[in-house]
Order: sequence, then C-alpha cells, then structure tokens
Amino acid sequence: MTDPTRADVDILYRASVAVHRVFRDVRGSPHRADVVGMGATGSPTEEIDRLAEAEILKVLDAEGVDWDLLSEEIGAVARGGGRTLVVDPIDGTHNALRGLPFATVSLGLGRRDLGGIEIGLVRDLYRGTTYWAARGRGAFRDGKPIRTRPWDARQEVLFVNLGRHATERAVRFARRARRLRALGCATLEILAVAEGGGDGYVFENGPEAGNLRATDIAAAACILEEAGGGIQDVEGRPLDRFPLSLGRRTSVFAWGDAEFPRAAAREGYW
Amino acid sequence: MTDPTRADVDILYRASVAVHRVFRDVRGSPHRADVVGMGATGSPTEEIDRLAEAEILKVLDAEGVDWDLLSEEIGAVARGGGRTLVVDPIDGTHNALRGLPFATVSLGLGRRDLGGIEIGLVRDLYRGTTYWAARGRGAFRDGKPIRTRPWDARQEVLFVNLGRHATERAVRFARRARRLRALGCATLEILAVAEGGGDGYVFENGPEAGNLRATDIAAAACILEEAGGGIQDVEGRPLDRFPLSLGRRTSVFAWGDAEFPRAAAREGYW
Repeated sequence: MTDPTRADVDILYRASVAVHRVFRDVRGSPHRADVVGMGATGSPTEEIDRLAEAEILKVLDAEGVDWDLLSEEIGAVARGGGRTLVVDPIDGTHNALRGLPFATVSLGLGRRDLGGIEIGLVRDLYRGTTYWAARGRGAFRDGKPIRTRPWDARQEVLFVNLGRHATERAVRFARRARRLRALGCATLEILAVAEGGGDGYVFENGPEAGNLRATDIAAAACILEEAGGGIQDVEGRPLDRFPLSLGRRTSVFAWGDAEFPRAAAREGYW
Repeated sequence: MTDPTRADVDILYRASVAVHRVFRDVRGSPHRADVVGMGATGSPTEEIDRLAEAEILKVLDAEGVDWDLLSEEIGAVARGGGRTLVVDPIDGTHNALRGLPFATVSLGLGRRDLGGIEIGLVRDLYRGTTYWAARGRGAFRDGKPIRTRPWDARQEVLFVNLGRHATERAVRFARRARRLRALGCATLEILAVAEGGGDGYVFENGPEAGNLRATDIAAAACILEEAGGGIQDVEGRPLDRFPLSLGRRTSVFAWGDAEFPRAAAREGYW
C-alpha cells in the first residue's frame, strides 16, 4: 500500500535537505561571504533565499508534482495548481549572518489558508534535525513523536520577539515571563513550544517593521497544532482563515497548553 | 619545551569533557529524568551540579594539581591553594530541564579576582564546541582564533537577560536593540559577543532574584577580553577587582567593540 501523505512528506524532506546543502556550501565557502557570512554588510538575504528557492523548484520538477510555489523572494510560481507549497527558504537569515546557530527552512503544503495546510516540515539548518506533521497524524522530530507540555507557572519559559520594533503589548508580555527567551527565528521558537521547550510565543511588531507572513508560520503552526498546541493573533483571532499570500501580515500568539492563554489573560500578562 | 599554560588549558579541557559526559549520560537516561529532563518539576539543579562537581574533583586529583575549587553547589574546597579553579558546573540548567539546547560548563583558573583569572575555558554541552583563552595569548573556539566584530548599527544584535526579574534599565536597553536575543545562559551569550555573533550583553536583575556571581562570568569574561571585547557592571565600574567568592553578585554589561558602549551612552540606550 502506498501512503500518499507519507510520499508528500518525503518530497518536502528532500526539498529541505537540498536547501540545507546549499546553506552549508555557502556558509563554508570563504568566497561566498557576500552571500551569507561574517563579512556581509548589505542585504545578502535575497541571494541565499533565491539559491534555496531554485533548489526547491529543482526538487519539485524532479518529483513531477504539480504544486504551486509561494516563497519570500520569488513570490507566487504557478506550476499546475494542485496544491501550494508555502516556503520560507531561510528563516533566521540575520542569525546566519552573525554566526548565531538559529535558522531553518520551512515548508508547508496545502490549499487556500493556514487551516488548509495539510503537511508542515521544518529543518533546523544548524542542528540538522527535522520536524514534521500531517493533519490528524501527529507531530514528529527526527521520527519521534513530540507533544507540548502542561503549563506550570514555576517552570514557565516564554519566547517573545523584542527589540526596537516590538509593540508595547509584546514588551508587557515579556516582562511577566518567569523566564524569557528570544532566538530571532519564529519557526524554531514555535517549535520549541511544540516540543515542550517553551510555554508560549509572542510576535507583534509595530507598522514600521511589520509582522509575520503565511510563509513564516504555515509549517510551524501545523506542527504546533498536531503536537497539542494552539495559535492565534494577539487579539485572540484564529488564524485558520489567514490566506496563503505574501500580501498579508499578522501578529502571532502561540501556546502549548490551552491553560496558558487563560492564565495569561487572568493574570494580566497583556 | 613544555608550555605550562598549555598544560593547564589541557587539564581544564579534560575537566570540561568529564562534565559533558555526565551531562549526556544523565540526559539520555530515562530513569534519571528526576535529575535533568522533561519530567522534572522540583529543583534538580543541585543534583546535576553536584555530579558535575564530583567529576571535576576527580580530574583535579588525577592530574595531581593543588588548585582550590570554587563552585556553585559545593562552595569553596581547599586543595592546597596553588590557584583557584572557579566553576559553574552547568550554566543553563533551566534550559536543559526544558530541552532547550543552551547550556555550558564554565571553568576559570586564577587568583583573587576576575582580573586575576589566567585561563578561561567553556564547553557548549549541546554543540560540543570548546572556547578557551589565556591572558595575552588570544581566544579560540575549537582551536581557531575568535575576534569580536566592529559595531555596525544596521547589523546590531544585543543579548539581554529579561523576564519578570529584570530591572527597568535592562528593559529600556532591550527596547533600543535593533535585534534582541536571549538564551538564558550567560556564558553562551557573552561568548556570542566574543566571536562576533552579538554586539553587547546586559544582565541586571532586581534584588529579589539576584545578579551574576564570579562562577558565572570568570571564564567567559577572560575569553571575551582576549577576543577584543570588554566587560563592566551596568554602572560602568570595571570588574577586574571583583573577588572570586560566592558571596558577591554583580550586574554585567559586556561588549565586543568599545565604540558600542560609547554609542549606547550617546544615543540613550540606558
């Protein structure tokens, strides 16, 4: 018996490995320091993203699938319209530029909106670990099931996007955290919540910097939900109707245990 | 020709590897989930610290050195008084409890105060990398020299300890950062500055939670200074006379490029 979902996961996995190979090649090549490396001063983000997108398209062509592509730099690529592969080729480019080991490739496969994402797969480009989930089939890290963790006030760890573009609300939230972490890589932070490493994640920037796009969260949100967690915007609105489009941005509030957002509201974290 | 400094570095290295082995053994053993693991709810910090301290003492005995030991749990151990080995056996225990891969063993060797630390060695307990420095001989990561990076406002990355115990001043500083990171592991954050991954690091907690001790910063400060950076408390006082003792605590402001603290003062980061 062939398992079509498993076959699709394998294609996403091969695409993630292709991106990982490009990422390592570029990082390890002194003469590509202009693309991603300590010497970079301009905006090499686009070039490494384009190299990664080209690799993903090669994999899709080789596999013979008719999926459209939606990705940060290349935009929307019509390839037959079966489903849409929503891609953030490198989440955490600024970390990579500074040698901080927090970056991923993020791949979500589905239709229309975040609720229509059927498979999410994220590969950690430093540790080499792979996270994936398919709707109704659970979430996995390197083949082992992952689950969120019950919220316990004494053990609380929250991830919050901070710095000069963060809103007052995000700062207030961060100041209530028992322990605060920030990695500058939304997928890794949401996945930390998915595997019990954190209890919540908040991202809300002011209009001058912008919020997250479907490409940033499609895969991680699917994995988090399959691991037992939940995700909304910071106003409490669900994101399942959030469209697969580069033109829309949203704040994000993600949690592992549904008791946590209740406690955060009750205890005035916001 | 024997090189006495190099011989001492090798002893610190062997002690760090012994701690790493204990850490991995405990993490990989389901029946030791009470010590460090996802199942822990109490205060297992002390037990893993004591196991690590016992390993370090075994190495010192086997090497036949007369160094005293100063460490978080065991306190001060007189062993002959040649010099003092200042140890944080596990920096980042709460990360390890949650499966967040940011923890180190930190070893500083010297006399009297932070300025008297001659050798610093830190091993990353997840990545397996080793950082070390000896006064006047430079700083290294896995044998390769590391240097801090010139501050560039557009590329700025700051590490700040945040959450409910952080002071107003630390929060103000974090809100000015172009990009903000927080790992919950002081040594890794100071070493990120040392190797050019960040431009600054701030730790200042209110009195209810306490600041850093000599054990937390002895090794990382030595490595940072040899890599070209600097360290003070947040009032601008130097730390070289800060005593090797568990009874004193201090805030920390570390930087890679001396231009950064000047810019931070000028532009009202504090």
